[in-house]
Amino acid sequence: MEKLTIIKVGGKIVEDEDTLQQLINDFSAIEGRKILVHGGGRSATKIAAELGIETKMVNGRRITDSDMLRVVTMVYGGLVNKNIVARLQACGISALGMTGADMDIMRSHKREVKDVDYGFVGDVDACNADMLGRILESGVVPVIAPLTHDGQGTLLNTNADTMAAETAKALAKYYDVTLIYSFEKKGVLRDADDDNSVIPHINEAEFLRYKEDGVVQGGMIPKLENAFSAIHAGVSRVIITLATAIDGQHGTIIEA
Amino acid sequence: MEKLTIIKVGGKIVEDEDTLQQLINDFSAIEGRKILVHGGGRSATKIAAELGIETKMVNGRRITDSDMLRVVTMVYGGLVNKNIVARLQACGISALGMTGADMDIMRSHKREVKDVDYGFVGDVDACNADMLGRILESGVVPVIAPLTHDGQGTLLNTNADTMAAETAKALAKYYDVTLIYSFEKKGVLRDADDDNSVIPHINEAEFLRYKEDGVVQGGMIPKLENAFSAIHAGVSRVIITLATAIDGQHGTIIEA
Repeated sequence: MEKLTIIKVGGKIVEDEDTLQQLINDFSAIEGRKILVHGGGRSATKIAAELGIETKMVNGRRITDSDMLRVVTMVYGGLVNKNIVARLQACGISALGMTGADMDIMRSHKREVKDVDYGFVGDVDACNADMLGRILESGVVPVIAPLTHDGQGTLLNTNADTMAAETAKALAKYYDVTLIYSFEKKGVLRDADDDNSVIPHINEAEFLRYKEDGVVQGGMIPKLENAFSAIHAGVSRVIITLATAIDGQHGTIIEA
Repeated sequence: MEKLTIIKVGGKIVEDEDTLQQLINDFSAIEGRKILVHGGGRSATKIAAELGIETKMVNGRRITDSDMLRVVTMVYGGLVNKNIVARLQACGISALGMTGADMDIMRSHKREVKDVDYGFVGDVDACNADMLGRILESGVVPVIAPLTHDGQGTLLNTNADTMAAETAKALAKYYDVTLIYSFEKKGVLRDADDDNSVIPHINEAEFLRYKEDGVVQGGMIPKLENAFSAIHAGVSRVIITLATAIDGQHGTIIEA
């Protein structure tokens, strides 16, 4: 099968001029079919504050009322997404900025209210792999903002890590998929205080032991759970790495 | 040749909940290949004000400094565009929100400074008809926001009427194109004070006479100039009509 690289980058990287340009260069250098999935939370928080809209987070997730939905639609779908697209075009890449609503590539439903009402937040139901496959085969590079839709006309704020994982899983039937989660550390660390203590490979048994021992904790647990879920769904490998080291040769590698 | 309908709608229509839903329904009902080009100036002005950014207009055009460029990128490319896309999807239309940067469909250059420095405003150089044709042939409906790019990584604020006309001209080599300019009047009026005095057809000789006689004045002059320029470039017909009457059967019709 043909190779496909799906890179998820956090808001921090795409919102700073210097790191954004580095990312654009690194992403441009990746050979073969590729998709970029981006965040933008810091800009959303900043612009919401300027508009007098308070940001409320629960368990690291944004409460998205109708005012906040307008902000994330502007910031993720417009400001962040279109700036990445314009810069990729300058590198000769036929980038196409998309949300889940565009060409119906990703549908979700509004998260059920249990303990917390997250508001207009989507839990993914389906990724349209056929449509994404057609886009990729035409030589176009999708740049995906963390917004989906419910098929009834409503956009929903959606976790970018989840969107990247769902995209990777759906496309695994057509491609040899590498999913790269980039963030601010060099990989999964054996010692949280030592940035150079990267664990080069983790299998699921090791992950469970690391979790039990407390080596892996906090936000890294759902990231690794997402990673193993992707592997079980046919994704060839997941790499957790520094945002400035997305060449597939660095970070922590999880393979089937 | 196959028929293609290109509809330009102003900001006023897409920013009000009731008129937006009417537009979505009317646009959905149009048969065959179609493209929607939208504005969003009122929302941009409103959000700019909320962000403490003053809107300056010269000759009806927005002065776009770097702060205002961020606002229009958010509002046109994100808020307005993605809401239209999500609503069209709810009508079963495979809509794709785009700026000129997406898939490089429209390039421009920053307007030269003469008497006025308009800032990050683009004058269109090229519309990629081949790419738009491929999108249309795959059954996808482009929804185009009034932003282009310079090919060097910079987005540029661009007049939606002009983008619609350039798109129509470029696609005239592949399609029998009808370009519909919708606005708040029923068409070109013989008497500005009588909303029912629509002139059903205008040819270029009549336009020149109406202009000389003062029957046609103000913002209608560039609109009609755009229309005749499109006709000269191979567009089959241009219709100037009310935003709630975009079925091709109403308004003022300009034909070759």
